[in-house]
Amino acid sequence: MDVILLSHGAGGREMGELIRRVFLSAYGPADFVADDSAVLHLAAGPLAFTTDSFVVSPLFFPGGDIGRLAVAGTVNDLLTAGARPLALAASFILEEGLPVETLSRIAASMAATARECGVSIVTGDTKVVPRGAADQVFITTAGVGQILRPGISGSALRPGDAVLLSGTVGDHGATVMLAREGLLEGVELTSDAAPLTGMVLGLLSAGLAIHALRDPTRGGVAAALTELARQSQVAIEVEEDRIPISPAVAAACEALGLEPLQVANEGKMLVVLPEAEAEAALEIMRRSPYGERAARIGRVLEGPPGRVVLRTGLGTSRLLEPPAGELLPRIC
Amino acid sequence: MDVILLSHGAGGREMGELIRRVFLSAYGPADFVADDSAVLHLAAGPLAFTTDSFVVSPLFFPGGDIGRLAVAGTVNDLLTAGARPLALAASFILEEGLPVETLSRIAASMAATARECGVSIVTGDTKVVPRGAADQVFITTAGVGQILRPGISGSALRPGDAVLLSGTVGDHGATVMLAREGLLEGVELTSDAAPLTGMVLGLLSAGLAIHALRDPTRGGVAAALTELARQSQVAIEVEEDRIPISPAVAAACEALGLEPLQVANEGKMLVVLPEAEAEAALEIMRRSPYGERAARIGRVLEGPPGRVVLRTGLGTSRLLEPPAGELLPRIC
Repeated sequence: MDVILLSHGAGGREMGELIRRVFLSAYGPADFVADDSAVLHLAAGPLAFTTDSFVVSPLFFPGGDIGRLAVAGTVNDLLTAGARPLALAASFILEEGLPVETLSRIAASMAATARECGVSIVTGDTKVVPRGAADQVFITTAGVGQILRPGISGSALRPGDAVLLSGTVGDHGATVMLAREGLLEGVELTSDAAPLTGMVLGLLSAGLAIHALRDPTRGGVAAALTELARQSQVAIEVEEDRIPISPAVAAACEALGLEPLQVANEGKMLVVLPEAEAEAALEIMRRSPYGERAARIGRVLEGPPGRVVLRTGLGTSRLLEPPAGELLPRIC
Repeated sequence: MDVILLSHGAGGREMGELIRRVFLSAYGPADFVADDSAVLHLAAGPLAFTTDSFVVSPLFFPGGDIGRLAVAGTVNDLLTAGARPLALAASFILEEGLPVETLSRIAASMAATARECGVSIVTGDTKVVPRGAADQVFITTAGVGQILRPGISGSALRPGDAVLLSGTVGDHGATVMLAREGLLEGVELTSDAAPLTGMVLGLLSAGLAIHALRDPTRGGVAAALTELARQSQVAIEVEEDRIPISPAVAAACEALGLEPLQVANEGKMLVVLPEAEAEAALEIMRRSPYGERAARIGRVLEGPPGRVVLRTGLGTSRLLEPPAGELLPRIC
C-alpha cells in the first residue's frame, strides 16, 4: 500500500485497511466509531456548527500543512461563536496515485493540532477520484462546539467598541504564495496556522463583554472587517500604524503587489468589545503564544454603515475594501 | 456571472455575490447566518454527528443528482444512529469554469431534498480551484441530529435477530454506472437516492426494539452486512430469494459482471431487530413511499463471527464478501 488506489474509496476491504492504517492510527481509535455517525454527549445549551473545505497548494509549507489548516480553520470558526470546540468530522477527497505516506503525514498533523486544542476527530469519510479529477488531496472539516457565551456575532458591534487584532497580518497568505512560486529560499516567512482555543477561551472565561469575534482568513482583515461593518450596519476606522506586520510579509506583499490587509491569516482573531475592556482583553491575548503582538487597531463608528476606513500614518484616509478578482487561489 | 471564476472562491465581493445568488436564494435566507458558525438550539440529550463527501460522476442521473445525494446521504447516516436529522452544513469545491446554472440546479435540488425530510442547511463554505484541479463540483455535507433512541449501533446485533431491507438492491449504482457509459437509453433504471427520515422515525416512534440501522451505500448490502457482523462479532445468514431486485438492475449487473449485493444504494436501510418484531417493522417500512418492497432478508446467528453467508435458491450457500478492487469509482 504505497499509493492511493481507486479501490481505497470503494467501500470494501482496501478502504477498511486505509482507514485503520492511516486514520485510526493517527487519531487514536478511542475517538472513532465504526458506525456511520458519531454520538456526542454534550452539556445542555446552544451549539455552534460549522464547516470548511481546504484545497491549499502546496500541501506542506513553512509553519503548517493542509491538515493543520483543516483542524485550526474549523476550530477557529467555532470559537468565533463564543463556543468551546469539541468534536470534528474530517472528510477526504483523494486523487488516485497520492502517496499513502503523504496522507499519513497529513493525518498525523491533524491529530497533533486536534490534541493541541483539545478537540476530538470523531467521524469521517474517504473518497478517491481517478488521476486528474482532483489535485492530490482536499479536506473538508466540520465541527461542533458548546456555546459558552450566547450572542457573540458579527451583527453585535456597537459604536464606540474597540477593534483588537491578535497579531501580525498576512503571514499565511504570503507564505503559501511564495512557497507555491518556489521563492521562499532565504526568506523568513512562516504561516500562522494555529487553533486559537486557549486565547479565546481565556477571553470568554474572563467575563469580558465581547461583541464579536472573527478570524480574518480569505480576503484578510479587510474582508473580515467589511463583513462585520455590514452585518452590524456600522462603520469601522482602522489605524494603519497600529496594524502589526512582519518585515518579511511587508516585503513579500510589496514585491507581489498585494495589500497585506487583504492577505489571508489562519491563526489570527479580530475581537470587538467595549473600549473600556480593551486593555484587559489585550493582556489576556498577549499571554497566548499566538497573541504576543495583539494590538488595538481601530474602533467602531456610527456610520456610514458597512464602510471600513483606513487612516494612514500620513494622516490621510482611504476606503478599505475586500479584495476583488482572483488574488490568491488555493490559499486555504 | 455565467461560469465559476477563481474570484468566486477568493473571499471577496464575487464570493459574496455567488453565495447570495446561488445558495441563499435556494436554501432560503432564514436558514443561513452571516457568521462563520451557525447556532443550533436543540433539546438536551445525545447528538449524532456525521460527514460524507460526494464526487459522483455524472452530476445528474435518472432519479437524482449530486445535490440530492449529498443531503440524503448525510441524513440517512444520522438516521442510522436513531437520530432525528436537524441541521446540515454544505461545503463546495468548484472547478473554475463550472456553469453557474449547473451549481444553481444542484443547490435547488439540495434545498428540495432538505425540505422533503425537514432538515435545514444552516452553514457552508465555497472553494474554487483552477481548471483541471477538480472535476466540476465536489460536495461535502456534515449533519447533526438529536438521538431519539440511544444504543442503536452496528455493534448491538444479537443472535436470533431478523435482518430487514427496505427495498430493491443496486438501483443507484447500476443507474450511475450506465449513465456514465451512456448506456441508459431504453433502460428502465432510476437511482433510489432518497432521505429515509419518514420511514426511520416511524420505526423509532413505534417503540420497536431496533438493534441496528445501516444504509448500504458503497460496497452495497454485502459490505454493510459484513461491517455489522464484524462489529457485533456474529454471523449473518441471508436468503438470496428474498432480496428484492428490479429486473433492470438484475440485467444491468449481469451485463456488467457485477454482484448486485455489492452495488451501492442511496435510499435503502437495513434494519436489525428481534425476530418477534420483524412483521410490525415491515408494516411500518412498507407505508413509506421508499419502503414498498421492504422484506425480511435474513437473520443473525451466533457465528462464525464476522461472516455473512448467502443461501441461494438452489439450497447451496456461499460467503458474501465486501467488494475488493475498483468496482465503481465515483458512484457517490
